[in-house]
This record gives sequence, structure tokens and C-alpha cells, in this order.
Amino acid sequence: VGGGTYRRPVRDTPYLAVDVDVLDRNLAAMADAARDRGLRLRPHAKTHKCVEIARRQVALSGAGLTVATVAEAERFAAAGFDDLFLAYPIVASGPRAGRLRALADRVALRVGVESAEAAALLGRAVQGLEVLVEVDSGHHRTGVTPERAGEIATAATAAGLAVVGVFTFPGHGYGPGDRGRAAADESATLAVAAAALEQAGVPAHVRSGGSTPTAALSDAAVLTELRPGVYAFFDAQQAELGSAGLADVALTAVATVVSRAPGRAVLDAGSKILSADRPAWTTGYGRLPDCPAARVVALSEHHATVVFPDGAEVPAVGEPVRVAPNHVCTAVNLADELVVVSDGVEVDRWAVAARGANT
Amino acid sequence: VGGGTYRRPVRDTPYLAVDVDVLDRNLAAMADAARDRGLRLRPHAKTHKCVEIARRQVALSGAGLTVATVAEAERFAAAGFDDLFLAYPIVASGPRAGRLRALADRVALRVGVESAEAAALLGRAVQGLEVLVEVDSGHHRTGVTPERAGEIATAATAAGLAVVGVFTFPGHGYGPGDRGRAAADESATLAVAAAALEQAGVPAHVRSGGSTPTAALSDAAVLTELRPGVYAFFDAQQAELGSAGLADVALTAVATVVSRAPGRAVLDAGSKILSADRPAWTTGYGRLPDCPAARVVALSEHHATVVFPDGAEVPAVGEPVRVAPNHVCTAVNLADELVVVSDGVEVDRWAVAARGANT
Repeated sequence: VGGGTYRRPVRDTPYLAVDVDVLDRNLAAMADAARDRGLRLRPHAKTHKCVEIARRQVALSGAGLTVATVAEAERFAAAGFDDLFLAYPIVASGPRAGRLRALADRVALRVGVESAEAAALLGRAVQGLEVLVEVDSGHHRTGVTPERAGEIATAATAAGLAVVGVFTFPGHGYGPGDRGRAAADESATLAVAAAALEQAGVPAHVRSGGSTPTAALSDAAVLTELRPGVYAFFDAQQAELGSAGLADVALTAVATVVSRAPGRAVLDAGSKILSADRPAWTTGYGRLPDCPAARVVALSEHHATVVFPDGAEVPAVGEPVRVAPNHVCTAVNLADELVVVSDGVEVDRWAVAARGANT
Repeated sequence: VGGGTYRRPVRDTPYLAVDVDVLDRNLAAMADAARDRGLRLRPHAKTHKCVEIARRQVALSGAGLTVATVAEAERFAAAGFDDLFLAYPIVASGPRAGRLRALADRVALRVGVESAEAAALLGRAVQGLEVLVEVDSGHHRTGVTPERAGEIATAATAAGLAVVGVFTFPGHGYGPGDRGRAAADESATLAVAAAALEQAGVPAHVRSGGSTPTAALSDAAVLTELRPGVYAFFDAQQAELGSAGLADVALTAVATVVSRAPGRAVLDAGSKILSADRPAWTTGYGRLPDCPAARVVALSEHHATVVFPDGAEVPAVGEPVRVAPNHVCTAVNLADELVVVSDGVEVDRWAVAARGANT
């Protein structure tokens, strides 16, 4: 971090910094790739939760956003976004029913459904609401088997909902070497689910899939829409999966060395700024883009313990170090704002407008 | 959750709820145990980050608070707390130097130090600041070996700091069966470090240790002060370590079932409300106090996948389920407020005043 004719303003660590030039390159690359393949890009805003980034995404794709919660939908709707897909099996009980109604009055809203019980609640909350049936393509989280998609569509139609298609999240592509298989599963599952809908008399106009690792591999003859999120920033996990290089990581935690020993330093960035996500196959709790051979071997709330390779210079107490989090979505959700940097110079700050928007 | 003559107001999930009766019982038990052993209790406020809970703790112990960051110290100082120990090897560079000066002008402040470099920066920031030398009792994170405590004390004194003692965090007690050994290491390390200080001509008036798992086992002939934090709420991890029972867990995430299959349910509480902390020895990503045999086998941002034992009733779509997070400190830091419950009735809401106070 440096260069330019300005000095970076001194700021206490740890904080999250976004390299806006890398961000813009990532956003354009995904938008171009989707357009080239004839797929609608509906980026998942849960990754960044920032109005400024969502605006860039919508300007590039000409389509709407994906969100994970009603609260995220509310915050993006308040910022003027009028086309939102809530890719989650929403249970419209309690105050959430009225909140969904208010949202549906204001924006083009679609939500996920995967049970007759949830369809009945949604139908009571918002008659005519557009829904997509969630199917399980191998991640085994939520979603019905594709063969059951017609049954759910029928229940949804009976509840007064407007079924417009099917969606899945191929989350089992988040493992080394798993991307190709997960993308193939996703396409095959959506094809079966779409056929099941047609058999039930409901055309599956929307066939929505896509995650950052699988987005480039989805079958454009089956899918109509992609919903990747992480690609805006990438992260250590995506670099280790091969979805991107460390040079493509647009968001890092800027930390300070607080303790040092031979071959080892402790930074002031811990799980309260990086988050503690650590899939078993990762090399540690994040990566150092400026020293790719270093390993983050331990993480507590305000400490990251970094082991440096033989011969590498260990930074001194007080020196700044950038850390790419393992999972950028959970790191962003810990920060009130992102510090925006271009050419090493701080140029802006963006509020994490949907931070903590869990309900 | 139920009972009383009031109905709990309906609230959209997920949210964090504190059973204030269990909280008060936990606070009193630790305060009584410390008093009985002649140890000062200086609770770590990073766990709850709530003014209301800190007030209860200070009223019980008559002593100050421990905090992890300058920002936490600032927020508790702003709420009127005037005796704060920043148990962290503070690097007083950049704006942090002036922030420390402002704090030291306002409250009785002590901070940690474990290198000559950090001592020099602290001395430049606040002449006469009280410091404790951090020593490593086996957790191998920060802190010098106890034999080196005198060398650091000498450097701190030379930098114009007032060395008042030594401290350690026996974090290697966070493993099954490790509590006794970690507590013994803590006591032995603090004794050696205190002797090293005395040899360097600096009396170690304060010998501070303690963590929730080890607090009851510390040697009261060596230690003068305990700094446990998690004991206020406990969590799934502490229950699995044997520090507490699931009935002692005062904070849970209240979630809703969004998907159900035989023997299995998916809840709307994920890593953005529970946090993703998962030590290898835990049984999963949290525990269900109302169904101790259930296992949280997978966690994503807005999903917890729960497997129920044979014969157990799987809750229906729409039903509420309480989840004790693995690590309550990182869960609290995700919430803007805690919903306070007594006898199943919502009685208050407490702001997480120091949420996100990382710098």
C-alpha cells in the first residue's frame, strides 16, 4: 500500500479496505462473462451490503439484485433498488408477513419457497407474490429434490402465489476440485426441476443458479440467471479454490503487528474483523497478499498469529500488514464501513448499509 | 420460552436473547467465588459489550473492568466506567496515541506491554501510564516468557511507564481436560514473572490471570486478580468444556425452522448471528438447550442445519428454536442489541454499546 502523490491518511487498525480498481475489474469481468453467455447476472448483495457497490453492479448488468433476508431487501429498497430476489425459503410469520407486503408494494419482489407450509404462509402474506421453487443440487442445505419441484409449485399456486421458476445454490462447489462437478449438478438439477414444473403446468421462466466458484461453468442452455456474490471482492478461500488469484482480492483487513518473534508475528486483526470462517481445506484463517507463503495459523478475537516462511522478513512491531479474510461476506458484516482505496490512496468510505440485517 | 401472564411480543428471528435471571446468577456466582478466595474480579467486558451488564458486574465486585481495545475502553469510559485495564499489547502509533492520552486523562487506565518497541511508543504517548507486562503461560499467542518479564519491565520503566505487575491469558485451557493444567501453568508463570520483576527492582503488585474455564482453579496465593469474561453468559463451548451446564447458558439465538426433513431441520440462524467459531473438539456449531442431543452439523450465513436424535420430535416449519452459540463473545459482536427476557417474558433491550469497537 503506497504510491501516488498523496499520503494515505493515518487510521487506526484494524479496518477493512477495498481496492476500488480491483473491485471494478472483478465486477466488469463477471458482467462481461454473463453477458457473453446470454445469462442474466443478479449479483448477491449479501457479500458487500453496500449501496455504492450494488449501484455499480446494476449499472453493469441492467438487472436486479439478490438478497438473503427481508431486512437486506428493506435496506436496498430504501436505497432505491426496485428489483430484488430474496433467495431464501422465507417463512412469512409474525411481523415478517407485513414487512414482505410492504416490500412487495414498493419493488419487484421474488422470494424462495421449498415447502407447502411456507407457501401457505407466503400466500396469506402477499397474494400474487412471485416465487421460485428452491431445489437441492447437492449442497444438502435447503431445497427439495428436483423431482419434487412440481409438487411445491402446485402448492404455491394453490396458495395464490405466482411461480416463475426454480433456483438452487451449488454450495458443494466450495471445496478444492469440486467446482466442475457442482456446476454440472446445478445444471442437471435445474433442468429436471424445470421439467417437473412444466409437467405441473407451470412454465419455469427463471432457472437461477450460480455461485462464484461455479459461475463460469454453469450450462447456459439450462440456466437463465446467475447469482454470484463473492466475486466482487474474492477472498482467501476463493484464491485457494482457484476461482481467483490473490491479486484479484479487492478487500483486505489492514492490521498492525503487535508482537513479533523469529519467523512469527501477531497482528491486531482477529475474528471480530476477519470472522472465524475456516473450512477444513483452507491453509489457515486468511492469507497475506503481500506475503503469499505466510500462514495465519491461529485466530482469536483480536489476534492473528502469522508464521512466515524461512528467509522471509518478519514485519516489525507497529508495521501494517494486509490480511485477506477467508470468507469476505462474514468479514464485511462485522464492519460499519469500508475504507475505499485507489492506487494506495484513501479516496472514500462506504457504509455497510445492510450490516447486521439478519431478520 | 413461555409462562408468566404476559405474552412475549412477536419478534422476527433471528435475534439474541439474554435470560437475565440466569445472567444474574452467573454474575453473582463468579463474584462470590472470587471474593471467597480473596481475588479481585475484573470482568472482561469484551464478552457482552453492554453497559447494563458491566454496571451489574462492577456493583458486585467493587472493582473495574477489563477491555480488549482502545475503542472498547472509550465506549465504557463514555458510559462512566473509570477503572479500565486494556489487557492487550497496545501499539500506541498513529491516532491511537492521542486516544490513549485522552483516556488516561479521564479514567484510571492500565494497559498491557510485552515488547521494548511497544513500551517506547506507550511512553511517548502517555508518560507515567500504568502498565502490566504480558507473559505467555502456554497459550503461545502474545506475551514474553516469564523469565523475560524483568527485561520488559526495565524497558517500560526506562520509557517512563509505571509498571504495576504482570498478566497472562491461559487460553490453552480451552480444550477438553485442559483446564487444570492451564490453571497450574498460569499460576506458575505469574509467580516466575513476578519474581523476575522484583529482581529488576519493580514490585509486581498486580498478578492478573484467569479465564472462564480456569478461574476457579487459579492459585490465590499467586494471583491477585481474575479477568474472566464468558462466565456472564457461558456458551456451547463452555458447556462442552464442563465450565458450566447448558442450563447456565444465559444467551441464545432465537431462530425459526425454515426447512424440515425426517430427523433434520434448518434454522434461520447462521454465522451472521451465531458466528462461525468452531474449535475442532466441539460437537458442532452450537447447541440446542431445549434438545441437548441435537447437533448443529453445518452452518452457513443464514442457515444452521440441525440433526435430531432418533425418536426426537423435529420442530415444524415456522417453530422457534433456541441455539446457544459456540462462542458468545463473537456472537454478541454481531448484534446491535440483546433482547432481555425474564421468566419467558421480554422485559428490556440492551444496546451492544461496544459492538464493532475493534480499533
